[in-house]
Amino acid sequence: MTTQVVKPTTKLDQFLHEQRPPTPFVVVDVDVVADRYHELVTALPAAVVYYAVKANPAPAVLRRLVAVGSSFDVASPAEIDLCLEAGAVAGSLSYGNTVKKRRDVAYAASVGVTRYTVDAAEELDKVLSVAPGSSVCVRVRYDGATADWPLTRKFGCTPDEAARLLVDATNAGSECGISFHVGSQQRNAAAWDEPLGVVAGVFDRARDGGAAPSFVNLGGGLPGSYREAAPSLGEYGTAIGKALDGAFGDQLPDLMVEPGRYLVADAGVLRSEVVLVARRAPDEPRWVYLDCGKFHGLAETMDEAIRYRLRTNRDGGPVGPVAIAGPTCDSADVLYEKADYQLPLELAEGDMVDIMSAGAYTTTYSSVGFNGFAPLAEHYI
Amino acid sequence: MTTQVVKPTTKLDQFLHEQRPPTPFVVVDVDVVADRYHELVTALPAAVVYYAVKANPAPAVLRRLVAVGSSFDVASPAEIDLCLEAGAVAGSLSYGNTVKKRRDVAYAASVGVTRYTVDAAEELDKVLSVAPGSSVCVRVRYDGATADWPLTRKFGCTPDEAARLLVDATNAGSECGISFHVGSQQRNAAAWDEPLGVVAGVFDRARDGGAAPSFVNLGGGLPGSYREAAPSLGEYGTAIGKALDGAFGDQLPDLMVEPGRYLVADAGVLRSEVVLVARRAPDEPRWVYLDCGKFHGLAETMDEAIRYRLRTNRDGGPVGPVAIAGPTCDSADVLYEKADYQLPLELAEGDMVDIMSAGAYTTTYSSVGFNGFAPLAEHYI
Repeated sequence: MTTQVVKPTTKLDQFLHEQRPPTPFVVVDVDVVADRYHELVTALPAAVVYYAVKANPAPAVLRRLVAVGSSFDVASPAEIDLCLEAGAVAGSLSYGNTVKKRRDVAYAASVGVTRYTVDAAEELDKVLSVAPGSSVCVRVRYDGATADWPLTRKFGCTPDEAARLLVDATNAGSECGISFHVGSQQRNAAAWDEPLGVVAGVFDRARDGGAAPSFVNLGGGLPGSYREAAPSLGEYGTAIGKALDGAFGDQLPDLMVEPGRYLVADAGVLRSEVVLVARRAPDEPRWVYLDCGKFHGLAETMDEAIRYRLRTNRDGGPVGPVAIAGPTCDSADVLYEKADYQLPLELAEGDMVDIMSAGAYTTTYSSVGFNGFAPLAEHYI
Repeated sequence: MTTQVVKPTTKLDQFLHEQRPPTPFVVVDVDVVADRYHELVTALPAAVVYYAVKANPAPAVLRRLVAVGSSFDVASPAEIDLCLEAGAVAGSLSYGNTVKKRRDVAYAASVGVTRYTVDAAEELDKVLSVAPGSSVCVRVRYDGATADWPLTRKFGCTPDEAARLLVDATNAGSECGISFHVGSQQRNAAAWDEPLGVVAGVFDRARDGGAAPSFVNLGGGLPGSYREAAPSLGEYGTAIGKALDGAFGDQLPDLMVEPGRYLVADAGVLRSEVVLVARRAPDEPRWVYLDCGKFHGLAETMDEAIRYRLRTNRDGGPVGPVAIAGPTCDSADVLYEKADYQLPLELAEGDMVDIMSAGAYTTTYSSVGFNGFAPLAEHYI
């Protein structure tokens, strides 16, 4: 396990020091996104990178990724439009949401999108009838996944069903393949091993039925640099390469990968201000209340799942245990109560708390105005 | 326990039948809000009603509540502005958020707000220095609360600390009192008993120290009509009256109550469309995917806490077990997987699912655009 403590770039720190817009806000250095893209292409040279737009759909991020040659994983017509407006060609888009309205598939097909993901017979029928001839990716369920932002049984069909859908897709004249997901913020580089074995088995069964699966979509799961250490990207590349070798030998299928968090998380810093530090009883941790909480950008602290690194303008002095909460009247708006955070004893009203590696899954999760607080402000540099 | 199955009004059903705007949307009948207000004033005649604006800050709701004479519990400058724009006078506003920026207190004071809630010495100092002479409500922690949307330790000071803050407030020349919260969607009408005993004890200790507490804020907690039955409002009124009598005898303090959910939940219906019904394995429940989920209005299904009643255009036929999820690529966007929901076997793509009593805590929790889906549309009739 390699400890990856990613420092903000000089550009980010300069912005924070010189611009000082009203808090709370997130600032994203798009150069970091481009750097991450190049690192990923180096670590997984055989895979085509489809950026998961939902992680951060800002035009500045999309334009930069178009410029470096990325493809895009989209979830809705609005995300398709954002990519096209940023200069992407429709052929570089994959409609990865397994839950699509019929009219949304029709819209996607009308602008030239030719790749669709499904995980049920009903959805395959929908795609084959509305966008015939498209490439079909069948998402298989992988129950063994353990990750910081874990998966439910919401997505993915059984291996048996996946093999049947590949046969149906082939019979309809579609190119086809399999996707799976190891769970977001997956800190075990060996996590692709087991599902790739499952996929190879599905391919065998599907071929027995006459299917011609040609690609594997490795999904997302590559990490941002949060409090708990994760392996380096090189270690992921090596482990995934080994897993592919074990599953497919020299019959390597075409490969896709769908990073969201990995490309944008470390590019951003979310700056918040301390509104109140409450010391209520000597034997209890202080409660630190920020002007940004679960409903204005930090949704991924749900169940304290994503544990961000924090930085304050009081760092260096002695620290003590804290619970950390957002500014709304909602008792669910607690960021960390059990995750053993420590912050400087000097921290007080008006101080700054920077939430590090906050470029992913912050801006769009933000509520439209819960408690009357505005959505999280965004800056791209 | 009285089963309260509240049917949508004729006005709501007429709108749903005739207008048919694109789904998903919520429609709210403001007449129901006014009816609920009158019912509450009848059941708790001694209490001044402060509507918790965060439950639904729509101008149409606020205007109607101004017309019937309600006061308002606000959480931020934006909520203050909404109330004033709807015609409320500043004297009818209570700034109930215990986490307030100093400049936000200053803004509130500048427009005439004179009631503030605090739950820490640091916050009391802030209010007394920025808005001297204001009425101060001290929120005391009540750990015994069990409710469908339960509380954390985020809010409230200890009884000892509360007594000290009442003394400090009195010494600063402020009118003062105590608030507590029994938990949102509190289905036990006797839940006010114990905390009112705690409050009476705090009052005694505070008076020994020279304080002159004059009011009790009974908080929120009154229920919407969800799947699990709740007592009738009359039962709450009787139980709270008895609890007040036990705690204060004939020395009844002034009373405030802060309903949000109770006033607006039953006034609304959220209409969604079925995007996909997936039957993946014979021994597994069907997965029903709607065009509205956790990130576009149904945030209170977090941990399956709030269990809405559902209605479909296929009701009447045989039903079977389902899991229900929203339309985003996020595996956390599952509404119900464990809560044993059953829906008609005939339910299919394009059918309508109405989420009943969805007027509270839906519109403002909605994300600005996660996965590229627009915020929840709202209609007021």
